Amino acid sequence: MTAAQITPTWIAVDWGTSNLRAWAMDGSRVLAEVQSDDGMGKLTRDGFEPALLRLIDPWLDRGPVPIFACGMVGSRQGWVEAPYRTVPCTPLAPAAQVTAPTTDPRLTVHIAPGLKQTTPADVMRGEETQIAGALSLMPGYDGILCLPGTHSKWAQISAGEVVSFQTFMTGEMFALLSEQSVLRHGMQGDGWDDTAFDAAVSDALSRPERLGARLFSLRAEGLIAGLTPAAARARLSGLLIGTELAAARPYWLGQRVTLVGASRLSNAYARALKSQGVDAHSLSVTDCTLAGLSSLALQTEAAR
Amino acid sequence: MTAAQITPTWIAVDWGTSNLRAWAMDGSRVLAEVQSDDGMGKLTRDGFEPALLRLIDPWLDRGPVPIFACGMVGSRQGWVEAPYRTVPCTPLAPAAQVTAPTTDPRLTVHIAPGLKQTTPADVMRGEETQIAGALSLMPGYDGILCLPGTHSKWAQISAGEVVSFQTFMTGEMFALLSEQSVLRHGMQGDGWDDTAFDAAVSDALSRPERLGARLFSLRAEGLIAGLTPAAARARLSGLLIGTELAAARPYWLGQRVTLVGASRLSNAYARALKSQGVDAHSLSVTDCTLAGLSSLALQTEAAR
Repeated sequence: MTAAQITPTWIAVDWGTSNLRAWAMDGSRVLAEVQSDDGMGKLTRDGFEPALLRLIDPWLDRGPVPIFACGMVGSRQGWVEAPYRTVPCTPLAPAAQVTAPTTDPRLTVHIAPGLKQTTPADVMRGEETQIAGALSLMPGYDGILCLPGTHSKWAQISAGEVVSFQTFMTGEMFALLSEQSVLRHGMQGDGWDDTAFDAAVSDALSRPERLGARLFSLRAEGLIAGLTPAAARARLSGLLIGTELAAARPYWLGQRVTLVGASRLSNAYARALKSQGVDAHSLSVTDCTLAGLSSLALQTEAAR
Repeated sequence: MTAAQITPTWIAVDWGTSNLRAWAMDGSRVLAEVQSDDGMGKLTRDGFEPALLRLIDPWLDRGPVPIFACGMVGSRQGWVEAPYRTVPCTPLAPAAQVTAPTTDPRLTVHIAPGLKQTTPADVMRGEETQIAGALSLMPGYDGILCLPGTHSKWAQISAGEVVSFQTFMTGEMFALLSEQSVLRHGMQGDGWDDTAFDAAVSDALSRPERLGARLFSLRAEGLIAGLTPAAARARLSGLLIGTELAAARPYWLGQRVTLVGASRLSNAYARALKSQGVDAHSLSVTDCTLAGLSSLALQTEAAR
């Protein structure tokens, strides 16, 4: 199939800090997918429209197609600010979408706002769409959604609303410590050691206040006790995820938990939760993003 | 005074990962000080001798002068490996020094070994010399030495020996989070807010397991609650130092504590400890390094 033959009824866009992904959609069916590294982080305000057109221009041959976007594209530094909505509230609301300023008449870009929580202060952008998608894939879901990632989110869902949520910097800490800190010397490669991960999760959950002390031991054991890179990587991950679980305990203890994330990361969280007696269900983050944007597209069209 | 007039009886060298500092000494008196950014981290093995000569060549006009060095210069990736000694032991031992291979006949470079602890695994290089210096400045000291820095160390001292020690990555975490993570957006400048620091120390000490959750709140409060960069910086520092104090509690609770570090950082630790009822005494880290290397120089000469 050549690009010219793709005629979507709408276009889904996930526009984060580092990446831009777009899907040509026909209802809830994906016709094509494209992506680039034109993330929000490297664009100035007038760079968004050209960046989007570079990817989706071939899909616009038959005229205007509505576009639904989520993520950092709606932040203050993004294309146009889509002000946060305040929880408790539904994850998405068609009426709260903001339309981006465009010069190409074929473009109508709806941007979904993120959510904020006043006390304790917290924010999300992009995850609200994944949450909406998870709820549309699991109608009537009541319980906890955990969205592991650079900034992991735990959200309490009840009656179709996000009641409260909490963000952890676990993914970013793992990247900084494993790639930029002194610990990087003992973590080369992509190896993994489940036993080391499990022990670290258990250790962090039982004495989470010792995290600061345990991190440097990864370096010291590499130097004087033969700790392997695979074990060091897995232990760092286990320490950070275990510390997150310790602080997030009110979210998962005795609760129904669904994970929405990249499969490898969701698997690590599922394994850690399982060790605490919680059987978490997993959904694909891409499926949830598309389902969330689909529900927006559908409701917006219906409201016309 | 021109460089040609400086005639040291020995030369002290503190050679870390990022910096090289040398002092022309006459006994315990400093005649001159020089430094460069030729740290161990950017040198290959045959780069150490030229890097040192670039700094101290003018001091060698009257012939050979013994040189005493500490720090990462003695690591496996350094000039020559000075194998770790194992605690409990005195911080320095003249007989354990390693002589670096040199081609210039005027150079005799003694390198002090670091210390290791088998269980829990831990290592230090450079701090053992600061500890020896602190003990020579406070003869008969029994108690705790805290050496705040990139990798903070807590050491228990008894009868002139390092009994045990523990490393925390607090300084490196502060640098990574304030300069490289998403938190950097809310921390521009050099501002400081003592009240925010105190509250964060107290918060981290009472619920250290919540660190992961509290970090992102710095970003969220910057976005939606007007948190100032000065308060954000001080709170990040307070959270990390408080978390370190929580894990290091067995080291300081009811103990005599002396801080050896850069003055601004030592002041922050002293303030945090004071809030817990501990009056810590402070020593200058440079004074301690020079006193430690002086004691090595003196004992080495005396042993001849």
